[in-house]
Amino acid sequence: MLTRIDHVGIACRSVAEKIAFYESVFGLRLVSQEVNEEQGVREAMLQVTGAATGMSAATGMSWVQLLEPLGPDTPVGRFLARRGEGIHHVGYGVTDITAALAAIGASGVRLLDARPRHGSMGASIAFLHPADVGGVLTELVQAADS
Amino acid sequence: MLTRIDHVGIACRSVAEKIAFYESVFGLRLVSQEVNEEQGVREAMLQVTGAATGMSAATGMSWVQLLEPLGPDTPVGRFLARRGEGIHHVGYGVTDITAALAAIGASGVRLLDARPRHGSMGASIAFLHPADVGGVLTELVQAADS
Repeated sequence: MLTRIDHVGIACRSVAEKIAFYESVFGLRLVSQEVNEEQGVREAMLQVTGAATGMSAATGMSWVQLLEPLGPDTPVGRFLARRGEGIHHVGYGVTDITAALAAIGASGVRLLDARPRHGSMGASIAFLHPADVGGVLTELVQAADS
Repeated sequence: MLTRIDHVGIACRSVAEKIAFYESVFGLRLVSQEVNEEQGVREAMLQVTGAATGMSAATGMSWVQLLEPLGPDTPVGRFLARRGEGIHHVGYGVTDITAALAAIGASGVRLLDARPRHGSMGASIAFLHPADVGGVLTELVQAADS
């Protein structure tokens, strides 16, 4: 069902500062920046892999996703207040997010998003309830080109 | 420098229980189980991707790594006591871990392991200080076949 680790979502106080860090220390390449008002977050996607081997997003790319809250009363804002900066969630690739949500929901895992919504770079995404996935906030991602 | 997201390390109270969960809910495949006395941890590697596309570990595979502490006075045991079950660290692939450590150390990031040590499935691994990577416990992984 899962095709890859699509991304690791990292909560931070300043996306601009962390972009500079990941570019300079790890050599990652900034690919996209956007503001997602619905989720109350400013985000940046830095490509970890894929370009060198000619992979498409659907089959192989992976990303570091930096997340800066638009305010304290947002999911990422509350995460920062509670835990500080650090890993916020993991996103796995799927080829058919609607089918994946149906199968996972049928297994008893609660879906935070019963239907896919808009994610980074045109992807369709949905989150699963972390309490049902061993404390891991888990996201499914169907890439825009898949 | 980083070639892929190699794995996400997930701290849990029972590797056996979480293996069954990830197999049944997400269809992941258990590839390896081992006890690492040095790190005080029982661990399991479940393959997320790679097999279907014939990737080698060095170029494309990624994994969920489940971590169960061998006792409370271990790094993962202390993590569970402090934060509960959840994402513990992220591991990135590199092709030359010695060169990567030298470059990252020169950037000012403190290395928890100045020299590579033994990781899952014969890999050479090293951890970076989370306080210098925005709260993210970050591991470098040079796969055994790379």
